Amino acid sequence: MTNSSPRIEVVCIGTELLTGKVNTHTSFLGEQLASIGLALTREQTVGDDRAVMEESFRAIASEADIIFSCGGLGPTFDDITREAWSSVLKRPLQFHPELVREIEQKFKLRGLLMPPHNKRQGQVIKGAEIIPNNNGTAPGQWLIFGKKILILLPGPGRELFPMVEEFVLPRLRARFSSNFLINKSFHSVGVPESQIDHAIRPLVDRYQNFKGCKVTHGILASQSIITVKFTVEGSKQRQVEQAADFLSKQFKKKIGSTLFGEDRDTLPIVIGRKLRSQKKTVAVAESCTGGLLAKMLTDQAGSSEYFLEGVVTYANSSKQNRLGVSAASLKKYGAVSEQVAKEMAAGLKKKCGADYTVSVTGIAGPSGGSADKPVGLVYIGCATPKSVVVKKFMFNGDREWIRHRSALMALDLLRKQLA
Amino acid sequence: MTNSSPRIEVVCIGTELLTGKVNTHTSFLGEQLASIGLALTREQTVGDDRAVMEESFRAIASEADIIFSCGGLGPTFDDITREAWSSVLKRPLQFHPELVREIEQKFKLRGLLMPPHNKRQGQVIKGAEIIPNNNGTAPGQWLIFGKKILILLPGPGRELFPMVEEFVLPRLRARFSSNFLINKSFHSVGVPESQIDHAIRPLVDRYQNFKGCKVTHGILASQSIITVKFTVEGSKQRQVEQAADFLSKQFKKKIGSTLFGEDRDTLPIVIGRKLRSQKKTVAVAESCTGGLLAKMLTDQAGSSEYFLEGVVTYANSSKQNRLGVSAASLKKYGAVSEQVAKEMAAGLKKKCGADYTVSVTGIAGPSGGSADKPVGLVYIGCATPKSVVVKKFMFNGDREWIRHRSALMALDLLRKQLA
Repeated sequence: MTNSSPRIEVVCIGTELLTGKVNTHTSFLGEQLASIGLALTREQTVGDDRAVMEESFRAIASEADIIFSCGGLGPTFDDITREAWSSVLKRPLQFHPELVREIEQKFKLRGLLMPPHNKRQGQVIKGAEIIPNNNGTAPGQWLIFGKKILILLPGPGRELFPMVEEFVLPRLRARFSSNFLINKSFHSVGVPESQIDHAIRPLVDRYQNFKGCKVTHGILASQSIITVKFTVEGSKQRQVEQAADFLSKQFKKKIGSTLFGEDRDTLPIVIGRKLRSQKKTVAVAESCTGGLLAKMLTDQAGSSEYFLEGVVTYANSSKQNRLGVSAASLKKYGAVSEQVAKEMAAGLKKKCGADYTVSVTGIAGPSGGSADKPVGLVYIGCATPKSVVVKKFMFNGDREWIRHRSALMALDLLRKQLA
Repeated sequence: MTNSSPRIEVVCIGTELLTGKVNTHTSFLGEQLASIGLALTREQTVGDDRAVMEESFRAIASEADIIFSCGGLGPTFDDITREAWSSVLKRPLQFHPELVREIEQKFKLRGLLMPPHNKRQGQVIKGAEIIPNNNGTAPGQWLIFGKKILILLPGPGRELFPMVEEFVLPRLRARFSSNFLINKSFHSVGVPESQIDHAIRPLVDRYQNFKGCKVTHGILASQSIITVKFTVEGSKQRQVEQAADFLSKQFKKKIGSTLFGEDRDTLPIVIGRKLRSQKKTVAVAESCTGGLLAKMLTDQAGSSEYFLEGVVTYANSSKQNRLGVSAASLKKYGAVSEQVAKEMAAGLKKKCGADYTVSVTGIAGPSGGSADKPVGLVYIGCATPKSVVVKKFMFNGDREWIRHRSALMALDLLRKQLA
C-alpha cells in the first residue's frame, strides 16, 4: 500500500457474533477492498452492549480514516448501533418518514403488514446520506465527518454485500485509488502447506521489490487448498503488469503439478471449463460424500451444460439397482473396496452415458469402521472414455472433514483425467 | 454474567483474515465459552504486520484477563505470533528440541520429510506450558503472567477446536465457573425475523429478572433460520432450572408452529430423529438443489439408518430414466412444474421403496428464467405413505441463496409431513 493509504477499520456489532455466529463480513470487505488497492488494518467485534460499543466506536473514530460499521440496524430490541454512533459523534438522529413508507411497501410486496417496531429504521444520523438496501428493510448510511467517513451497514450478508459492491466501493475507488495494483493467487491441492512454502520461499526472499514495484507475499491453507498470493503495486501500469506476468511464471514453475488454478478458480470451475471446452459430460456416484460432490459441481452456474446426473447410493440395494454393482462384489469385497468403487464408476457410465463418471465409497464415521477398514478409508474411482482408475485414500479427522477431503480428492482425480 | 467474570478477549492473527478468509474461531470460542458461563467481551483481527500486532497485543494484555491468540504459529515466513508476544511480554523464546522431534515424527507418519522451517515451531515463550496438538504440527502455549492468562493457539480450525475443547475449557471451567447457567435457543424457519421478534417481545420486556435469576435475551436470523435465545443465570441450581423450564414453555407458545427445534437441533437432526423413531426411510430427487438436499440429510452421523438414496436428475433424460417422469409431462408442463415435482417424488418412491420421498425442481439461475418461469421459481414435492403434496415457492436472491432456501423448505415440508 502507498503511504497515503487511508487507515480502514471494520467494527461488527452483535452479541451473536461473540456467542456462535460466524462473521463473514470481514472476509468479504477485505477481499473487496483488496480489489481496489485498499487494505484493512484491523477488525473488531463487539456485542450489543451499549457501553462497550461506545468505548470501541470512540477509539475507532479517533484512529481510523474510513470506518465500516456492520450490524445492529435492524428493528429488534437489541439493534442499537444507530443510537450509539449518534451519541459518540454527538450528532442527533433524525426521523425520515419516507424511509418508513418504503419499508412498509417492502412488507406489502410479501403480503405482510409492517410490525410497528420497524419504524425505528427510519432514524438517520444528521448529515448522513442513505445507502439503499434492495434486499432487506434496514437502510445503510454514509456519513462524512471531518476528513473521515463512517459507513453504517446492516448485518445480514445478503443485504450488506450488494450495498458495498454497488454503492460503497465505487465511491471509495474514486477517492483513494491512484496506484496500479495487481493481485495474483495460485491454488494447489493434495500437498502440505510447508512443502509449498519451502518451494516458493526463494522467490519470496528475492522479490520484495521488482521493476520499481512493491511486492508483498502470503501463503494460506484453507480446507485443504493451499493458496500462494502476491500483490504487485506501483505507479506505472505497464511495469506493474510486466512484474506480475514475470512473477506469475516463476511461481507457477515452483509450485509444479499440484497447481490447479489461479485467482477465483476453484476445482469445480476448472473442471467445468475443461468439460465445456472438450464438449464432454460428467456424472457422479456417491456413497460417503452423500451428495456433496454433486453439490460442488452444480454450485457453478451453467453446470447443466455438462453435468448429467448424480446418484447418492447409500443403501447396498441402491448401489445394485442404480449402478449395477454386483451382489457378488458387495459380498466378497464389501461396499468400501477398490472393486466396488470401480463398478460404481463403470456402472454409472453405462447407465447414463456420461463421458466421465466419478465414484466415491468410504467410511466417513464416526461409526462403521473396523480394524480392516477404519474410519477415513475412502476409494475414489473415475471412468474415462478410455479406462477406469481407482485411488485409495486414508483421511484423518471427523465426519465433515473426511467428506470434504473425499469430495475434493474426487474432483482432483477428475481434473487430472481431464488434463 | 457475574460481576467477577473475567474480561476475555480474542485476537486473531493473519493477513488472510483481512483479505478474504472467513474467521470461524471467534464463533467457536464464543459458543464454547458460553457453555461454561463465560462471555467474550471483544474480538480483534490483525494482519501479519509486526508493528500492528504488537500495538494490539500491548493494549489487549493491559485490558483483558484472559487472552486467546489464534494463528501465526505455523512454520512459514509470515508466522510471527510467537516473536511478537515474546517481545510484548518481555519474555524470551526458548527452544525445545523434544517438540521438534515430535513434529518430525508426524511428518514421518505421513511418509514425508520435515521441511527445515518447521524447526521454528519448537520455540516456546519462557514459562509457558505446551498445549498438545494432535491434528497438526504447531503446538499451543498456555502462559500465566501476573493474574492473567495468555493462550496461544494455531490458526487451522481442525487443530484449534480440539485443543480448546480438550485442554483449555476444562482449565477455565475449573477456575472461573461458580454460578449456574442455562442457555436455551429455539429455531424457526419460513417466517420473517420481525414477526418472531414481535411475538416474543412481551416476554423479553417482562422477564429480565425472574425467580432471583438474571435473564438475557437475543434474536438472530441466519441463513433463513430465526433463533430466539435466552440465558438464565443464578446462584442456585434449582431456581435456574425452574426459571429456564418456565421461560422455555412461554417462548415455545409464543413462537408457535414455525418452531422446529431447540438448542443444537437443525432440520436434518429433527428429521433424522423422527424417521428413526417411526422406523421410516427417506430418499430424495433433486434438480436445482443439485445434491445439496442429500448432502444436508447425510451430514448427520448414522443417517444411513434411514436415508436410502438420492438422485440428482439434472438432464431431462435422467428425470425419465431414474424417476420415471413421463416425457408427456416434461413436454406439456416443462421440467419446472407442479406436475413434474409430483412425478419425481412419486416415481422415486416407486423405484426405491422409501416411505417418504422429497423432490425439488426449480430455476436457481442466474440464467434459464423466463417471464412465465422466472429465476427463483421452485416446486417442492413430498410423497408420503398416504399422498403426494407439492408446494410452489418464489425465492429472491442469487443462485446459492435460491438453492439454500429450496433445500431448507424441502426439509421443512418433509418435517411437517412427519409430524
